[in-house]
Amino acid sequence: MSRWQPNARERLAEAALELYGERGFEQTTVAGIAGRAGLTERTFFRHYTDKREVLFAGARDLEELFVRAVAGAPASAAPIDALAAGLEAVAEAFAGRRAFARRRQAVIAANAELQERELVKLASLAAALAGALRGRGVGEPAASLTAEAGVAVFKIGFERWIGADEERDMAPLLRESLAELRAVAAGG
Amino acid sequence: MSRWQPNARERLAEAALELYGERGFEQTTVAGIAGRAGLTERTFFRHYTDKREVLFAGARDLEELFVRAVAGAPASAAPIDALAAGLEAVAEAFAGRRAFARRRQAVIAANAELQERELVKLASLAAALAGALRGRGVGEPAASLTAEAGVAVFKIGFERWIGADEERDMAPLLRESLAELRAVAAGG
Repeated sequence: MSRWQPNARERLAEAALELYGERGFEQTTVAGIAGRAGLTERTFFRHYTDKREVLFAGARDLEELFVRAVAGAPASAAPIDALAAGLEAVAEAFAGRRAFARRRQAVIAANAELQERELVKLASLAAALAGALRGRGVGEPAASLTAEAGVAVFKIGFERWIGADEERDMAPLLRESLAELRAVAAGG
Repeated sequence: MSRWQPNARERLAEAALELYGERGFEQTTVAGIAGRAGLTERTFFRHYTDKREVLFAGARDLEELFVRAVAGAPASAAPIDALAAGLEAVAEAFAGRRAFARRRQAVIAANAELQERELVKLASLAAALAGALRGRGVGEPAASLTAEAGVAVFKIGFERWIGADEERDMAPLLRESLAELRAVAAGG
C-alpha cells in the first residue's frame, strides 16, 4: 500500500458509515473501518482521533464556517441578518452531502451517547456564534439569544433537509425556518 | 431513626449539594449523602434513584409544569403567547430557589457528564414543548421553532437569574429575554 492514499479521509468516512449502519457504532472497530476502506489503522489515525470523530469532524468545520460568515457579514447588518448570512454559508457547504447526512443521522439516532455528543456540538456552536455576535458589538442577552435562535433554525431546517421525502436544497429550507421563527416571534 | 422523616427529600438534596461542593460530584457517595442528612441509604433510595437524580429531578418537574402551562393557555393565544404563559409558570415555580439553583449550577459546571445531562434535559424540554404546541394545533416547523425559542429564552433568562449580582426575580428576566428575542427576530 503506497503512503499516498487519494481520498483516504473520504474513503474512511464512507467505510465507517457503512459499518456503523451494518453492525452498529459500538460493534465497529477502527481496524474494521480501515480494513473496509482498504487502508491501514495508521492511516485512519492520520485523519481521525477515534471512531467517533468520523461522525463529528464535520460539526467542527460547520462551526468554523458558520462563525466566520457571521463575523464577516457587513458591519451595518442587524444581528438577525448576520445570522442569515451564516445560514447561507452553511447551506452552501452541505450541498451534495444529503445522502451522507441521512446515514450519519441514522447512526446517531441509534446511540444515546452519540446523541449527547451532538447536543454538546450544538451547544458549542451556540456559544461560538454568541461570541461572534459580541465581536460585532451586539450586547447580551441579544447575542446569546440570536445565537440560540440561529442554532434552532439550523437544527430544524437540517432535520427537514434530511427528511425521507425532502428534495429541496438546504438554503430554501433554512430561509423558510428563519422566516417561520420571525413570524412566530412577531406573534403569528 | 423513625420511619417518618420530615423533609427527608429536601434534607437529602441539601446534603448532596453540600458534599458535591466540598468533595466534587464524582467523589460523593449515596452513603455519604445519607449520612450527612442524618438518614439511611434506604431513605435516599425512596426519594432518588441515584446521586445524579438529586440534581435533575427538578428538571423533570420543570418540564411537566412548563408543558402544562403551554397546553393550558387560552385556545385563542398565539404560539408565542402560550409560550409566555409557560415561562410565567416556570418563573413562579423557581421563586425562593435561587441559592439552591446557584449551588447546583456550580456543581454541574465542574463536571462534563453533568453538563451533557443538562443538555439532554433541555432537548427533552424542547421536544415536550413542541408536542404541547402541536396539541394546540400549531403546525410544523412553527411548533418546533417556538419550542426551541422557548428553551433558549428560559436558558438565557435562567443564566442571568443565577448570575452573581442578580437580584431581580426570574419572571421579569424571562419576560425581558422573550422581549429581546422578539426584538432580535424583528431585525432590531
